[in-house]
Amino acid sequence: MTKTTERIVLASRPVGEPTLDNFRLEELPIPQPGPDQMLLRTLWLSLDPYMRGRMSGAPSYAKPVGVGDVMEGGTISEVVASNVPRFAKGSVVVGHTGWQTYALSDGSSVQKVEPTRGPIQAALGVLGMPGMTAYMGLLEIGKPAAGETVVVAAASGAVGSVVGQIARIKGARAVGIAGGPDKCRYVTEELGFDACIDHRAPDLARRLAAACPKGIDVYFENVGGAIFEVVFPRLNPFARIPVCGLISMYNATSLTPGPILLPHLMRAILTKRLTFRGFIVSDFSGRYGDFMHDVSAWVGEGRIKYREDVVEGLKNAPRALIGLLRGENFGKLLVRVAYPNGWEINQQRVQKG
Amino acid sequence: MTKTTERIVLASRPVGEPTLDNFRLEELPIPQPGPDQMLLRTLWLSLDPYMRGRMSGAPSYAKPVGVGDVMEGGTISEVVASNVPRFAKGSVVVGHTGWQTYALSDGSSVQKVEPTRGPIQAALGVLGMPGMTAYMGLLEIGKPAAGETVVVAAASGAVGSVVGQIARIKGARAVGIAGGPDKCRYVTEELGFDACIDHRAPDLARRLAAACPKGIDVYFENVGGAIFEVVFPRLNPFARIPVCGLISMYNATSLTPGPILLPHLMRAILTKRLTFRGFIVSDFSGRYGDFMHDVSAWVGEGRIKYREDVVEGLKNAPRALIGLLRGENFGKLLVRVAYPNGWEINQQRVQKG
Repeated sequence: MTKTTERIVLASRPVGEPTLDNFRLEELPIPQPGPDQMLLRTLWLSLDPYMRGRMSGAPSYAKPVGVGDVMEGGTISEVVASNVPRFAKGSVVVGHTGWQTYALSDGSSVQKVEPTRGPIQAALGVLGMPGMTAYMGLLEIGKPAAGETVVVAAASGAVGSVVGQIARIKGARAVGIAGGPDKCRYVTEELGFDACIDHRAPDLARRLAAACPKGIDVYFENVGGAIFEVVFPRLNPFARIPVCGLISMYNATSLTPGPILLPHLMRAILTKRLTFRGFIVSDFSGRYGDFMHDVSAWVGEGRIKYREDVVEGLKNAPRALIGLLRGENFGKLLVRVAYPNGWEINQQRVQKG
Repeated sequence: MTKTTERIVLASRPVGEPTLDNFRLEELPIPQPGPDQMLLRTLWLSLDPYMRGRMSGAPSYAKPVGVGDVMEGGTISEVVASNVPRFAKGSVVVGHTGWQTYALSDGSSVQKVEPTRGPIQAALGVLGMPGMTAYMGLLEIGKPAAGETVVVAAASGAVGSVVGQIARIKGARAVGIAGGPDKCRYVTEELGFDACIDHRAPDLARRLAAACPKGIDVYFENVGGAIFEVVFPRLNPFARIPVCGLISMYNATSLTPGPILLPHLMRAILTKRLTFRGFIVSDFSGRYGDFMHDVSAWVGEGRIKYREDVVEGLKNAPRALIGLLRGENFGKLLVRVAYPNGWEINQQRVQKG
């Protein structure tokens, strides 16, 4: 077993699109757990669009990562040494221990990963933060009724894919927007959306209108920018717009206005009685039980499917995050940081059996 | 008794601020009620900002008034002849019979004015559409909690005055914005708001900040434009913005953007988790009973006060509406179209008694 831990720190704040120079890989001795601590070995690191915000010094809903500090991130880890009675060695936990191969924890901000039928890393995706973001934003703010039309961009991604599938479960028409024909095919054929529009192909507005013949009742906003511009004129009276993310703006060095101006938006809010509401998943933390109950059942029944885009090795996380912000991932983006202890033995058993 | 009825029709659609030429006074024979009709004699006509929208041909939540048609408006009327059993001659009704001295009705869209301690014309103001607009928008969308700060512009007007007073009843801090020192003095001294800012005086942003030391939790939007620009940076996380009106934009011939761009707004909605929701009072028509119960009690207890700005004579309605859109009224703007039958006799009795 290696005696060092690797970690990726924020080397400098990006201007515009992050570059590899904004990250630095450091190697340190593995820390020793204190009397009330445990040592966690990272198995999976989740990469998510919000991380771009943490790299910036601009005020937001969460404190930025300091320059020189370990990049933030959700993780699945294995307990490799424990002085915390609740967490035995060998337990698997989900937490927010960041871009590093080992971390200390006092157990206060990690949870055991409950055994499910699926793989443990689902706790970073469909059964974790992105899944709960989709569930709460759609059901608490979007509130789709049967027969209504729900539109979501980044529809093959971790959040968008769950939004559309829950919309279908609730009897709504689900229309995705995604980048490229492969993703669109996956969204309709595998995930069962009613339609999916390729935003890279020409004539987006006309194709969106054709896919939403009765207008748009819920637009789950996770991209902003040009997609919002084409969605906006199709919003029906009383439409609800949960504002979950604005990935198209995260790398922007200045906020360039499109043809829709603030007064246009306000006038539409008034005359169409629109609801725009921003949220982050932790606003709904009291609803975790409902989320797990419903979504784990839907996953178990095959009514919610998901796809993982796995990058091997912590050192490849920076490049993968840069790609995520470009829309290069296809499905929930995960970094496999390490295999669990005993994995090789199990693999050998499988190969023998 | 006169044998003719007067009515004011939309002569032409205004471009920018309406002018007197956009209106035309017509004189016609008084119509005779048919077998299931009654003849209403208008006593009071309500003038309200939404009327500017009806004069325009642009799509909105309601059909525009046609050129040549009677201007729309809420009215209090007296039944002067009736073939509708539910409405005896002499009854007083509230309806939407428009800018005319007489109207026919089959009774389906008017209600009897229930006797209250106040004057009948309150059914066009604090106990009518503007009062209910304030009540529903503030309580259903704004949802002020005790100790929170509620800001409303046009604070001496029919809607704004009720918004602030209900905010106070709910234990919130009420901060008004109004045009000129007289209105501001009235808003604080008579209506009991905690503060009122004169938007015509310089340094609005600094004075608003001083009046809202803990930021703004609810901004009841009825003006838009420059007022919104100064409110926006002071909005607290989780602030709610009921969008009720945008009077500053109603006469605009083009929508001029201020310094706040759509991407800024979207980013703030996300990071501060703001809620913007447009509404019109009829969206909440099922809640009329709650409104009347609460607000009539508050008026009776002296906890909600109101002020009327009365213009005499239907022919003066166009000029009064033009003034309303400039903020020249002071309180709920009403046109006294006629005195009730027998009023002179009652006046004489009062003078004798």
